[in-house]
Amino acid sequence: MISVEAALEIILSEIKTLGMERVDILSALGRVLGEDIAAAADNPPWDNSAMDGYAVRTADIKEASKEKPVILQIIEDLPAGYTAKKSVKKGEAIRIMTGAPMPMGADAVVMVEETEKAEVKGLPSNASIEGQESGVKIFKEAKTGDNIRRAGEDFKNGDIVLTKGATIRPAEIGMLAAIGKPNVYVHQRPKIAVLATGDELVEIEETPANGKIINSNSYAISAQIKACGAIPVQLGIARDNKKDLEKKLEFGLTADCIVSSGGVSVGDFDFVKDVLKGMGSEMRFWKVAMKPGKPLAFGVIANKPAFGLPGNPISSMVAFEQFVRPAILKMTGKKDIFKRAFEALLTKPIKKKSGRMHFVRAAIEQKNGQFYATPLEGQGSGMLRSMVKADCLIILPENIQDIEKDCKVKVQPLGEGLLYQDKPGY
Amino acid sequence: MISVEAALEIILSEIKTLGMERVDILSALGRVLGEDIAAAADNPPWDNSAMDGYAVRTADIKEASKEKPVILQIIEDLPAGYTAKKSVKKGEAIRIMTGAPMPMGADAVVMVEETEKAEVKGLPSNASIEGQESGVKIFKEAKTGDNIRRAGEDFKNGDIVLTKGATIRPAEIGMLAAIGKPNVYVHQRPKIAVLATGDELVEIEETPANGKIINSNSYAISAQIKACGAIPVQLGIARDNKKDLEKKLEFGLTADCIVSSGGVSVGDFDFVKDVLKGMGSEMRFWKVAMKPGKPLAFGVIANKPAFGLPGNPISSMVAFEQFVRPAILKMTGKKDIFKRAFEALLTKPIKKKSGRMHFVRAAIEQKNGQFYATPLEGQGSGMLRSMVKADCLIILPENIQDIEKDCKVKVQPLGEGLLYQDKPGY
Repeated sequence: MISVEAALEIILSEIKTLGMERVDILSALGRVLGEDIAAAADNPPWDNSAMDGYAVRTADIKEASKEKPVILQIIEDLPAGYTAKKSVKKGEAIRIMTGAPMPMGADAVVMVEETEKAEVKGLPSNASIEGQESGVKIFKEAKTGDNIRRAGEDFKNGDIVLTKGATIRPAEIGMLAAIGKPNVYVHQRPKIAVLATGDELVEIEETPANGKIINSNSYAISAQIKACGAIPVQLGIARDNKKDLEKKLEFGLTADCIVSSGGVSVGDFDFVKDVLKGMGSEMRFWKVAMKPGKPLAFGVIANKPAFGLPGNPISSMVAFEQFVRPAILKMTGKKDIFKRAFEALLTKPIKKKSGRMHFVRAAIEQKNGQFYATPLEGQGSGMLRSMVKADCLIILPENIQDIEKDCKVKVQPLGEGLLYQDKPGY
Repeated sequence: MISVEAALEIILSEIKTLGMERVDILSALGRVLGEDIAAAADNPPWDNSAMDGYAVRTADIKEASKEKPVILQIIEDLPAGYTAKKSVKKGEAIRIMTGAPMPMGADAVVMVEETEKAEVKGLPSNASIEGQESGVKIFKEAKTGDNIRRAGEDFKNGDIVLTKGATIRPAEIGMLAAIGKPNVYVHQRPKIAVLATGDELVEIEETPANGKIINSNSYAISAQIKACGAIPVQLGIARDNKKDLEKKLEFGLTADCIVSSGGVSVGDFDFVKDVLKGMGSEMRFWKVAMKPGKPLAFGVIANKPAFGLPGNPISSMVAFEQFVRPAILKMTGKKDIFKRAFEALLTKPIKKKSGRMHFVRAAIEQKNGQFYATPLEGQGSGMLRSMVKADCLIILPENIQDIEKDCKVKVQPLGEGLLYQDKPGY
């Protein structure tokens, strides 16, 4: 029997990150970038206006104020998407929209809220906008560069704007689009084969006869695989005989990894071990000091990592969270592969013997910024109901014994209970 | 200009939860359950063994110990998936695997670790397992019920095991499979139309001429929609004219909601307002007291909620996170629609004027269970690079001014930075 930490180390030493594929950027959401991305142009590409307002020469509006506005002549109307035809000369302004390139001659933008339209009479005819003779009152002086976004102030041509290994979120997709990359290299999604073992299992569409139960683990495990961003491949049920187990395991060898459940407890040990040896596997361990989840096997079959999860549904799910999830995330190229544990106060004591790390299903509540964890009734490894009610797993280290109420514990989120709430978080 | 909280209230009052659809349980991952689910049988369905071991009569092994073991006769070998043919009588035991139904006559299971095989000679012939005459030494006495999982101890026939409104996680999928439900009603996934507006925009595959930029907002918004579990429908770019805007908005009316970006700043205001009025829309507000994201519009066009996000990429993404995300989550049937905010200590001061809620892009670090938030350089609403570097948004309430280093602030996670780490969380 080895510790959870030691088991994790052995497992991760055998896991390799998968190769790359080229996908469109929207399909890349949640994937890991496989290449450094350099910008092919400055951003912004040119000096442009940060505001709707007037492009002006600061020299013209020195000491302009609400009381003593400076009147400038509007010589052009410049929407975003176009470049000015004229340049701004002494006493002139160009009406400019946010994002439009700065006209020649102007060195600042005055926002529209600090101006007012004005009639200007007797202007030279070349200074007016077609169909209207108009001017603008400027109520405030400006400094050179005011309300101008400078070319390249975000990034410059050639800058590495995204680095290999980054997880692609909406922000990264926005960046890729902005620099004109419709496709990108990401690490492949792992294909994980899921096998249930046991003569006691029937498929979900069957009515279990006496002594039989439905194979639910394959569904729970497949869902956990999907939740990691990988692709579950269901191999169905292997019966408790050498031939069927060999056949189904072989199906799994075209996947990137095999996850089975059942068949690793004391009773089945020898038979499964025989099959695995026959397939040239190296088993690394068979038991981990944890509860639930002790009868957990890990090995390598024909170069594919293989997890033998326990048959009890909760043991299987908890062991998946601790070992298979980080392994899958490593395959996808992620660096941060471990769920962050949060601190919570225990609302009830928990009985525990030293010697195994415990994972206790618990409900979580937040009061005044503090999490409180309440262990749920029914912690048996076959008890589905408490798993459904659980927001988190309380982690109790191997060498700890009974724990009192109000003690600080670490909790590992399950689902979204720690991440979402029913009121705004402001 | 209204507050963020007031804007949220107006928006959510217009958002309706979508109808149901029936999907296979694996496809239901992340969706919201649309029906209460009752169990059609007890779980476990019958008393069964929680261990690999021997089903015994406790009366037979009173005072059994390592020194004075009691020897019982093994009359049958019972794997999981089968029922015992014999019943256990005085002096007898049945070898039993985890999960196998308890044989008649036995009232406890002794785990295999507390036994040892023994040769038993001179047994009556009906008491032996085919081909072997054998017995077992029992080293420990047992209480009635030891290592037996009782029928119905998890839940009983007719119990509501999952309630309407629950988000379906792997645990819920395991439960549904266990009770034989291959399909289930969930709320439909919202279809969200995405429209970019502006003559300055070109599509991603085009090379932007002078004054033009690539439409990146549609990609970032579509990714945000996907990250909420909804389906983005890209309507492309609407040009700055009435006809094109009307046409593209009409495409959007077969979706559940419309999200546009651009076209709501001061300059475009009148023109867009005209089109919307022409389509029978009711606009609820045009400005929200936040930074970035002030020019934000919300209304209802032909019964469909419509968001007019600002054109600046960061303003658009931040406004989506605050308003569109909760709206989409409400459509999907979720109750917890707001991201939980976490507390962090500020590592640098932030300048702020009163009057708007600020959302400041920041990097997060955890030391000794405490989060530290560092505001990033380049907070301009067009600065993509700081958005890519950000793990979270620091939330600074409307009425707060300059904030000192070491102050406690609330942060809203972006992506997985607060949820995953590179070392195990034990």
